Amino acid sequence: MSAVLLQQYREEIRTELDRVVSFWLTYSHDTKYGGFFTCIDKKGQVYDDLKYVWLQGRQVWMYCRLYRTMERFHKQEILQAAKAGGEFLRQFARVPSDSPTWKCAFCLTKDGKPVKIQRSIFSECFYIMAMDELSRVTGDKDMQAEAEQMMDHIIHWVRVDPSELGRTKLPGDEPMNSMAVPMMLLSLVQQLTEERDQDLVEKYRETGHWCVQKILQHIQRGGMAILENVSLEGAELNGCQGRLQNPGHALEAGWFLLQFCGTHGDESLQLAAISKFIEPQFQRGWDKEHGGFFYFLDVDGHCPTQLEWSMKLWWPHCEALIALLMAYNNTKKPTLLDRFTEVYEYTFSHFSDPENGEWFGYLTQEGKVALDFKGGPFKGFFHVPRCLYMCERILDGLLGDKN
Amino acid sequence: MSAVLLQQYREEIRTELDRVVSFWLTYSHDTKYGGFFTCIDKKGQVYDDLKYVWLQGRQVWMYCRLYRTMERFHKQEILQAAKAGGEFLRQFARVPSDSPTWKCAFCLTKDGKPVKIQRSIFSECFYIMAMDELSRVTGDKDMQAEAEQMMDHIIHWVRVDPSELGRTKLPGDEPMNSMAVPMMLLSLVQQLTEERDQDLVEKYRETGHWCVQKILQHIQRGGMAILENVSLEGAELNGCQGRLQNPGHALEAGWFLLQFCGTHGDESLQLAAISKFIEPQFQRGWDKEHGGFFYFLDVDGHCPTQLEWSMKLWWPHCEALIALLMAYNNTKKPTLLDRFTEVYEYTFSHFSDPENGEWFGYLTQEGKVALDFKGGPFKGFFHVPRCLYMCERILDGLLGDKN
Repeated sequence: MSAVLLQQYREEIRTELDRVVSFWLTYSHDTKYGGFFTCIDKKGQVYDDLKYVWLQGRQVWMYCRLYRTMERFHKQEILQAAKAGGEFLRQFARVPSDSPTWKCAFCLTKDGKPVKIQRSIFSECFYIMAMDELSRVTGDKDMQAEAEQMMDHIIHWVRVDPSELGRTKLPGDEPMNSMAVPMMLLSLVQQLTEERDQDLVEKYRETGHWCVQKILQHIQRGGMAILENVSLEGAELNGCQGRLQNPGHALEAGWFLLQFCGTHGDESLQLAAISKFIEPQFQRGWDKEHGGFFYFLDVDGHCPTQLEWSMKLWWPHCEALIALLMAYNNTKKPTLLDRFTEVYEYTFSHFSDPENGEWFGYLTQEGKVALDFKGGPFKGFFHVPRCLYMCERILDGLLGDKN
Repeated sequence: MSAVLLQQYREEIRTELDRVVSFWLTYSHDTKYGGFFTCIDKKGQVYDDLKYVWLQGRQVWMYCRLYRTMERFHKQEILQAAKAGGEFLRQFARVPSDSPTWKCAFCLTKDGKPVKIQRSIFSECFYIMAMDELSRVTGDKDMQAEAEQMMDHIIHWVRVDPSELGRTKLPGDEPMNSMAVPMMLLSLVQQLTEERDQDLVEKYRETGHWCVQKILQHIQRGGMAILENVSLEGAELNGCQGRLQNPGHALEAGWFLLQFCGTHGDESLQLAAISKFIEPQFQRGWDKEHGGFFYFLDVDGHCPTQLEWSMKLWWPHCEALIALLMAYNNTKKPTLLDRFTEVYEYTFSHFSDPENGEWFGYLTQEGKVALDFKGGPFKGFFHVPRCLYMCERILDGLLGDKN
């Protein structure tokens, strides 16, 4: 693979990132109430004004990250929007209650009234990402402290007592290790400790290692499969839930682990990340007939019960691009770059919409656009820009050129 | 349309019903714990042993209805399975609690331990259907009384106070009229009062009329649309939720209303059922390019946010067949029979699997089988046999021949 080709990729990725940022700057800001509209159609029109807390937090995080680390995005417009989003979250995300609560809503009305609460930790996790990254830009120590306090509550819910999440404990509902949870916590540990002082690094060290160990429990079938759900002891579970595979999620876990290796240096972990989580997904999760990664698969070949199992979603492809390029960067193995190229070509030719900007999110198995909006209840300003941002930076490193 | 063609349909439907009943008799019975497996693959193999309460209740109801009203299904094998299913439900469906509760689980382990509870009324509704119909077969008065008591709780939850359902009241979550609720209650009123004494008919008379009025509130846009969700006062709601259309559900509501007219005689209601709920769905919900009914549509032509919006599901086609044939039976309008024929041809050529028995449930927009199992968390022994059963009986009536 020539440097010329890598340079070409970097150019395309840079242009695409500019176009994606521009789309959200133009169409997503609620200048009246603060925060972001995320239900945005093909051409930029808002088709629903509900505000999803996951996506509010992610957009604040991404804006701040771009503002803070990429010169061409160091713009007042981006900073102001991130601050308005942060204020909206601080004012409305945590559910008002008689007693103090750290539980956040999942969905708010445009003016901040809670519509729905999920009995999980994810709204709170994206709240932390927003607050921590925003505090890095503004220097607001209270905000950083709030992020840390929220993190301590989440760790308590996950590792000690989930009862504040509001789920009734049922005899048939065995607690399990769902890969999303340790992945999410690991990325928060990375977020909160990055370039912070040693005390904070120490505070979360054990949690970080616990997350890694919990992620590695998902390597099953003698190393031949990554299963989404395992028992708390790391054993395979019965039924559909136990057999579920999500190739995009495994790829994302792979690069989370590689990133952890980057700060902690651990060769055997790097090897596991690449050889168990990243490389085999191309064999296991790629649709050899039509291209693209399946959304869900059953490890024993049964038909998944998720209606969308065979659809091609944007985000697994985003995760694949990051994972493959990061793995190539770490190892310089040519096959990893070949895989990157293959995913890159499918992704840019199927998801990107150069005419109107941003990416489609949902294709049929055959690669036709099935839902033509650019943002929805689960698609905001996050996976696409994060992918482009990270790939651009990795390519900068590979090309030995930071500008 | 000649009687010969109607006779041909009846033959095919009869054969299909026999094959469907045989599939579930062969593969779905749990002879160890009672109740039914419903996650059953293309050829009959159980791929997950969770027991979904909706589907347990529906299978008991359908077995009893067939046993009670169709001579060729008046078999011990069917009665015994229905009784075993009823016992399983009575033993396990209602969630064990310190205080007496009428709330049922949504999903149980194979041996009856609750896995999940929904904060809605539907598990309880299918529990009633099972108990009432089983009591008609066995003559068990306690069981009938239990069905009635459960009904009284559901009416209380829907019309007076939903707090026992477990939903937190949130300022942004305005109570609304979701069409499924009055539809479900109306069908329960019909179930509980059919051929029962006048006291019971009187007891539920007002609720029945309330349901009809709540269903009619979904006629929106000057009569040009049926919207799934409206305000409690019958006004259109904002956003995706307010614009949602589900053609199969509108068709089902149509025949529920026609059935109500059958016992209550109401010409203007019959006209509304046919001209608002049934006839226009062919224009609004039918895919003119590939055939079949869309699952969801947005009344303003936005893309629905449900990933499966353009898929063709088995049950809307089942509802369409019943609705069109019942409407034809009531009016003898030839266009209704033409529509029936068109839906019949699509349905039998796409969903039915004569090789292995039963129907596929989920097709792509283009009509390819997307999920190849015969039963799953939401597909059991219900929509297909109910459709075939009702169509066979309507055809019996049309052909003037009860055998």
